[in-house]
Amino acid sequence: MRISELSRRSGVSVTTIKYYLREGLLAPGRHTAATQAEYDDQHLRRLRLIRALTGVRGLSVSTTREVLDALAEHAGDTHRLLGLALGSVRVGEKPAEAGPEAAEVDELVEEMDWDVHQAAPARAALAETLGSLRDLGVPLDWRTLLPYARLAERTAVLDLDQLEHLEDPLEAAERALLLTVLLEPALMALRRMAQENESARRHTP
Amino acid sequence: MRISELSRRSGVSVTTIKYYLREGLLAPGRHTAATQAEYDDQHLRRLRLIRALTGVRGLSVSTTREVLDALAEHAGDTHRLLGLALGSVRVGEKPAEAGPEAAEVDELVEEMDWDVHQAAPARAALAETLGSLRDLGVPLDWRTLLPYARLAERTAVLDLDQLEHLEDPLEAAERALLLTVLLEPALMALRRMAQENESARRHTP
Repeated sequence: MRISELSRRSGVSVTTIKYYLREGLLAPGRHTAATQAEYDDQHLRRLRLIRALTGVRGLSVSTTREVLDALAEHAGDTHRLLGLALGSVRVGEKPAEAGPEAAEVDELVEEMDWDVHQAAPARAALAETLGSLRDLGVPLDWRTLLPYARLAERTAVLDLDQLEHLEDPLEAAERALLLTVLLEPALMALRRMAQENESARRHTP
Repeated sequence: MRISELSRRSGVSVTTIKYYLREGLLAPGRHTAATQAEYDDQHLRRLRLIRALTGVRGLSVSTTREVLDALAEHAGDTHRLLGLALGSVRVGEKPAEAGPEAAEVDELVEEMDWDVHQAAPARAALAETLGSLRDLGVPLDWRTLLPYARLAERTAVLDLDQLEHLEDPLEAAERALLLTVLLEPALMALRRMAQENESARRHTP
């Protein structure tokens, strides 16, 4: 397909596609004339992935390239690929800053008997939330999170089940990324609807 | 306490506190001299609530005032208060735009037998996510979300349980707001850690 069709089908503007080509995020098309190139479904899939990483997950173009390179490099290692895609493995492996809440997260992970990398960004995210709640005067004991963690465990089984039938590890990583990143607002929406329902059940006559 | 201490304890700058006072978001303090006023714990709690609404949930100052006014007005109606706090009741009640995915959300809510207001923003958020996934070439059948919805139902029971012991409905609404808004990143972090663990369980020897 021509660049105009690639733009239409991916929802990414021609200007942005050209920028990704210059930055090396997207491989060049097959030249059919001096000023014309032909693109295929691989380009389309790659563009969608870039869009998910930059748009929904808010990564910079350079971090996106690192993630994509890492995905290609570890194509044989499904667990590492999924880790990269799901954001549990940090590109560059900067260790998380250890605040006072980091120890509480450690306790939670140990209590759940979870195999979670020490540098996983999710650990820092959880510690940060515990810190915010304390600052706002509504501190939350990490033990309160245990039943939530058990439900998260069951959610993760559903998540991983959706990737089981995919043979190509790169495709699995791509799908993992899309489902994780894009499913988050859906899961939060489900929780809010369920809260409304539960509140109605308890508080209306 | 003086305004400087209120600022220190709430983490909100004196300039911003004065702005909230001018805008009527915060009630005036008790004047102790021509240029001095005394603030109390009510002011502190109100400031924390404003901070959660404007900062974490990203509401404008005028919408925040509407929500706070509505909270005060419906102090006797626990379900409505919780609805306002949890964002399931929209201030002003603008109906959500009905896209092609709105019907799928209707089917999901009906299948779950949930009591969810037709104008609940969470419905629109879910429809939007289904639309994004379709645009990205990874359409998701709403039936795939049913097991997630059942887990969300159990999460909501945990959420509401945390508010049961609070007698004052305004305090319950405030806590609901903080727990809902601020717990979201924690729940997403738990899901990511659980995914990493589940991936390790399945894909490492």
